[in-house]
Amino acid sequence: MNQKRIARVIENMKGQGFERILVTAPASVYYLTSARVQPGERMLALLVTSDGDIKLLANRMFALQGQGLPLVEYGDTDDPVALLSESLPAGIVGIDKQWASLFTLRLMALRPDVKPVLGSGPVDLARMIKDAAELDALRTSSHANDRALRETLSALAAGVTELEIGRAYASAAQAQGAVGVGFSPLICFGAGGAEPHHESDSTPLKKGDAVILDVGLNIAEGLSDMTRTVFFGKASEKQRAVYELVREANEAGRAAVKPGVPLRDIDRAARGVIERAGYGEYFTHRTGHGLGLEIHEPPDVSARAEEIALPGMVFSIEPGIYLPGEFGMRIEDLVAVTETGCETLNEFPRDLLEL
Amino acid sequence: MNQKRIARVIENMKGQGFERILVTAPASVYYLTSARVQPGERMLALLVTSDGDIKLLANRMFALQGQGLPLVEYGDTDDPVALLSESLPAGIVGIDKQWASLFTLRLMALRPDVKPVLGSGPVDLARMIKDAAELDALRTSSHANDRALRETLSALAAGVTELEIGRAYASAAQAQGAVGVGFSPLICFGAGGAEPHHESDSTPLKKGDAVILDVGLNIAEGLSDMTRTVFFGKASEKQRAVYELVREANEAGRAAVKPGVPLRDIDRAARGVIERAGYGEYFTHRTGHGLGLEIHEPPDVSARAEEIALPGMVFSIEPGIYLPGEFGMRIEDLVAVTETGCETLNEFPRDLLEL
Repeated sequence: MNQKRIARVIENMKGQGFERILVTAPASVYYLTSARVQPGERMLALLVTSDGDIKLLANRMFALQGQGLPLVEYGDTDDPVALLSESLPAGIVGIDKQWASLFTLRLMALRPDVKPVLGSGPVDLARMIKDAAELDALRTSSHANDRALRETLSALAAGVTELEIGRAYASAAQAQGAVGVGFSPLICFGAGGAEPHHESDSTPLKKGDAVILDVGLNIAEGLSDMTRTVFFGKASEKQRAVYELVREANEAGRAAVKPGVPLRDIDRAARGVIERAGYGEYFTHRTGHGLGLEIHEPPDVSARAEEIALPGMVFSIEPGIYLPGEFGMRIEDLVAVTETGCETLNEFPRDLLEL
Repeated sequence: MNQKRIARVIENMKGQGFERILVTAPASVYYLTSARVQPGERMLALLVTSDGDIKLLANRMFALQGQGLPLVEYGDTDDPVALLSESLPAGIVGIDKQWASLFTLRLMALRPDVKPVLGSGPVDLARMIKDAAELDALRTSSHANDRALRETLSALAAGVTELEIGRAYASAAQAQGAVGVGFSPLICFGAGGAEPHHESDSTPLKKGDAVILDVGLNIAEGLSDMTRTVFFGKASEKQRAVYELVREANEAGRAAVKPGVPLRDIDRAARGVIERAGYGEYFTHRTGHGLGLEIHEPPDVSARAEEIALPGMVFSIEPGIYLPGEFGMRIEDLVAVTETGCETLNEFPRDLLEL
């Protein structure tokens, strides 16, 4: 159990008016208890009350005994929600945003007197602010990611497929000591890149293609996430112009990051560059997302974001332009908010690269 | 859009009394629409009504235009649940079991006149029965998995770590033409194996260890999942006795599979072998789980299962015995229910193997 983090969550609960919350995201349970469980479809729930009473409900197959956890175990033939409901008085309970609706609906059916409301805030707020050890791990991961990407570029050759480049990245990540990739590498050639989350396939590389490489690895308890767009052969005039725009947007976004700045203004800084050049409708997603124990976690860097930048936050700045049928481009870096501005965790250059 | 599958789901909706359901699991959306979307934290929802009216709500960054989908797009600054609620009349709506509670709670807040209830049944029932093409893909995957496991065993050597064996498996899977592993390989040496879902770590292999290898790959649109337990060096008398028991339980479970048999009786057949030998309390999980588009999907093979075996169902039979502080053993195969009994998809031998 991580008492310091639990204390921070309880403080946040008081600030947000929660008497009890259910923490169920495996990464959040790990954050507070150091218990690593991938529950799959099985229920995992840490019940936290603002007076410090804590229970961890877990399937006994995960064998969590002996770790000093406030464990309530159940088996595959039990109804875990019924067991959980024994610990809930009538009234409001905060529910983790990603908890499977199966469990929330079961709780509502069993206990009409319990009122579930969205209750991820207290843990999200704690997890958003990374401490020095967490920042170190993220920095180490991003630097290894820089090296793995460099190695991957040497595999680009006419006829190679997106999937093959994805595998080359996975091997390069392993060679850097990574436990594995942080997410399935997103490698997109040419027109496929116009779909921001195109699934890598057997498309072969050809001269003139813009190549998006969105990659990250998992090393020493730290994740990373970076995107670079490079050119196989000579970039066309239009490709050059769009690339420079995306680079400028990435730089403007990062330059806007400092404590006290609303995250929506950071989105605005990056998006404004692209909008002013007339490409606004082709930047189809938010500017960035938080990263820590998970690849995507709060805060969101979007026009709708409500948070302000605080020292210790880590998020991506990843503007892109996607021209259907032509090409897509994205340049993504992770930044950590410092006391005075930000540190960019990726050091891989952003100069236009023709291979 | 897969009209045949949609018709089956609508038929199931009528049988279960649903006028409208929200299909949100990415695999289920793929199953019905052929649209591949990994929405992460973004909302993806296919609204299906029993009169055949269908809408797919998706973030526009996934660029799903041009695929003949009944698309309703939204952007990162929209409230997708508000958009969805415009298509919902008052009354009951079936909710996909894994849908993030965030969305269900938001829907409840926006629309007190809409009553969300668990509504995965119609799609689960359709997905449980595999057609010939799906069975072919699963068979191909399991056979490739047999070969990849064979290759992996040659990497077992004194001092090698669980993580290294996991990587050896991933390479062997790639060499078989797999897109990747189907799930993170679960490799457990010695006492680590007593935790059924032990996370692979840097534990080194030593003489006398029982080695659990729970592995699967993703090839040609088919997943696989198999577990074998082998011995590094000579097995002790106790290890031999427990191994033979687990093997017998696996065989008894598979022998019980034929159309019309309640799945709980299959659990009973495997569990009975272990219970009668006095190890019942050390078989800490269900006997098996369905597999298809996802590694774990309905039906469950447990003492609480309500389904009966039907031709076309595919599920695992994976009894295990876990002795804390000593060792764990599990033998897992995938079976497909046929018209007369079952086909075991894995062909890797189950004889006690000392390496």
